[in-house]
Amino acid sequence: MSRILAKYYIETPDDAGKTASLMAKMQSTGTWKDLDGEAALAARFGAKVESVNITGNKDSYSLPTRYPAGRKVTSAEVIISYPWENFGPKISMLLTTVAGEIFDMYELTAVKLIDIEMPDDFVNLFPGPQFGIEGSRKISGAFGRPLFGAITKPCVGLTTKQQAELAYQAASAGADFIKDDELLADAPYNRIADRAKAVGIAMKKSFRETGKCTMYAVNITDDPDKTMKFHDIVRKGGAGALMFNSFTGGFNNLCVLARHTKLPIHLHRDFAAASLRSSYIGISPVVYVKLARMCGADQIQCGGLGGYLYESDEEMLQSMRACTAPMAGLKPALPVSSGGMWAGKLADNLKKIGNNDFMFLCGGGVFGHPDGGYAGMRSLFEAWDEYNGRPEGNNLKAAKKAFETGK
Amino acid sequence: MSRILAKYYIETPDDAGKTASLMAKMQSTGTWKDLDGEAALAARFGAKVESVNITGNKDSYSLPTRYPAGRKVTSAEVIISYPWENFGPKISMLLTTVAGEIFDMYELTAVKLIDIEMPDDFVNLFPGPQFGIEGSRKISGAFGRPLFGAITKPCVGLTTKQQAELAYQAASAGADFIKDDELLADAPYNRIADRAKAVGIAMKKSFRETGKCTMYAVNITDDPDKTMKFHDIVRKGGAGALMFNSFTGGFNNLCVLARHTKLPIHLHRDFAAASLRSSYIGISPVVYVKLARMCGADQIQCGGLGGYLYESDEEMLQSMRACTAPMAGLKPALPVSSGGMWAGKLADNLKKIGNNDFMFLCGGGVFGHPDGGYAGMRSLFEAWDEYNGRPEGNNLKAAKKAFETGK
Repeated sequence: MSRILAKYYIETPDDAGKTASLMAKMQSTGTWKDLDGEAALAARFGAKVESVNITGNKDSYSLPTRYPAGRKVTSAEVIISYPWENFGPKISMLLTTVAGEIFDMYELTAVKLIDIEMPDDFVNLFPGPQFGIEGSRKISGAFGRPLFGAITKPCVGLTTKQQAELAYQAASAGADFIKDDELLADAPYNRIADRAKAVGIAMKKSFRETGKCTMYAVNITDDPDKTMKFHDIVRKGGAGALMFNSFTGGFNNLCVLARHTKLPIHLHRDFAAASLRSSYIGISPVVYVKLARMCGADQIQCGGLGGYLYESDEEMLQSMRACTAPMAGLKPALPVSSGGMWAGKLADNLKKIGNNDFMFLCGGGVFGHPDGGYAGMRSLFEAWDEYNGRPEGNNLKAAKKAFETGK
Repeated sequence: MSRILAKYYIETPDDAGKTASLMAKMQSTGTWKDLDGEAALAARFGAKVESVNITGNKDSYSLPTRYPAGRKVTSAEVIISYPWENFGPKISMLLTTVAGEIFDMYELTAVKLIDIEMPDDFVNLFPGPQFGIEGSRKISGAFGRPLFGAITKPCVGLTTKQQAELAYQAASAGADFIKDDELLADAPYNRIADRAKAVGIAMKKSFRETGKCTMYAVNITDDPDKTMKFHDIVRKGGAGALMFNSFTGGFNNLCVLARHTKLPIHLHRDFAAASLRSSYIGISPVVYVKLARMCGADQIQCGGLGGYLYESDEEMLQSMRACTAPMAGLKPALPVSSGGMWAGKLADNLKKIGNNDFMFLCGGGVFGHPDGGYAGMRSLFEAWDEYNGRPEGNNLKAAKKAFETGK
């Protein structure tokens, strides 16, 4: 079988080449002690150091370690290849192999999986997006422009009835997409069974009145024995889409859901930054997006351009490009810009992203509009109109007045 | 309902108190924009800043951020309380709430969840260890001493027959516990269905010959729709235990497994260090252990005292104590010391841990023994004998000769 290439940024107070060899050994056939019979297995099952490119050195350890203090540190980019026969087409075991106990190694004072290249025959065994950009556009009838979405706010505490009212406001204003906040799933005071039904009714009412279809993604993140039950409830209720919290729900659970779903899956990334954000440990946002897409996410949150999340514009654009770049037989996933967005930030998003193939998703930017959720959603369409040279609408004007003076 | 207390270490270039309030707001009812109706929900659903204790300041940002550069940074310990009614007894949504998008906040240049205190009524809704220390001792008949365990090595590439042979070597030498490496689960060349059967036969053979019961934990980490099927296969085959990779398999999947299992669960922590190791982001090892125990792990890997993993002895001892400290109605989980262990390190483990309630688990230290796996396992018992003042056995002597000159 073919091999997976993993590129790491490492720092080590030991020899970089020796440390790279140890990484390859520890993550395949070997351990700290040489073993009888290991050599015979290495050709077929061994991970292999493909390259070590020393990039610099420094005087301090970037991560805590029990390695003796005070040594000079070498930084390097290392490429290691793994035979995927070692684990098969399973996301959990892929991660355990390319991003497992290497994070614990005391010889490494930095270890970041910065990119991963997977062979087509491997990638094609995963579900991938079933809907992606094209499917999301078809369902909502949104063509030739970004999709406009809303997150119901306040995040938690609303009754299902209040939630459905907010959803109706945004839907009747033409929203392509609405979703639960990531903090709300099957809560004791607001059950998925009730909410899915209530927002489904609201979406159908809006559709009857406007002829426009709006997806509402109900957050079904929970224990995996409930996943398919919640899927069926949401499908039956007519909300039209699912939301899933990637890291706390689990990529393996996402895979199972994606193989069975009849609805598009919107992926939130809460908790992921614990592994993504540091320059010195974890996996890069690009690796995250590649895996999320492979596991079947149709719409992938990539941060918010110019919003309140940590990452730079360039990092976010890299994540967005990973949603759509050619990748075996996978459909492109829809990149989502979210986190502090409102109408006034649309033009900057469009300019920097350079195309329309993304979702512009607002929480406070829609439901924090001074004239309510309907006006908030309209302000997004008016921002699109203004970007295209048409006169500024009243809802956009009100949004600018309210938000430009704020944060 | 009662509240969960989460203690964070934070660094911020903004005002610490203001930032703590924003964290509480963002992780419950609020967003960046004040919302109509939010105030009415806050009393019941709002997270609340319980304390802000400023601990120092520094001149640099410990994490990448788009926050304006060059400001002075304040560090603080912050305690925030969350009503668990917001999400219910679900591990995924607990994490999304206490350790979710706060990791993305650009006002935070460090954010580490260092401890969590959960009310008994909440904790008791989770499965917790079904076997724990007492159950693990009963199954293996190991009393008045640490449990001695072995990890089959080489990690990957062995046939099921070879795997069963190694398991038999260690079991017939008196092993309490044997397990797959974390890199091996349902691999194309070594299926769980075959391996569970083969090692089950080996365990039964050893039991017939020695009268001593050995658990073999088969690693069933996979997509969640296979979890219960693999459980049943392992149970039927007679291997006697399960292994699970916590972060790549998922705590929510662990919960489901723990609610149904008839076998003890051994928890590996690969990938977890991506969130545990940095001082500036993620969750602490103690939080990890508390959650793992709550989700039903019977045996929890806590690092290796004096081994090749990164953490200091003190950090590891903290994790081990979290396995057994009083926690609502939960049984104590068995702490596991593993990662570069061999017979010569047992005495140091015993002295530092200060009691016998742990598993001493060796891979290379057993199967890398110059006289093979049987001698390797015997060397652990001989190290225990030596610790108790009995003369040094030959297998221990050979282990010292082989390993003390090595790493």
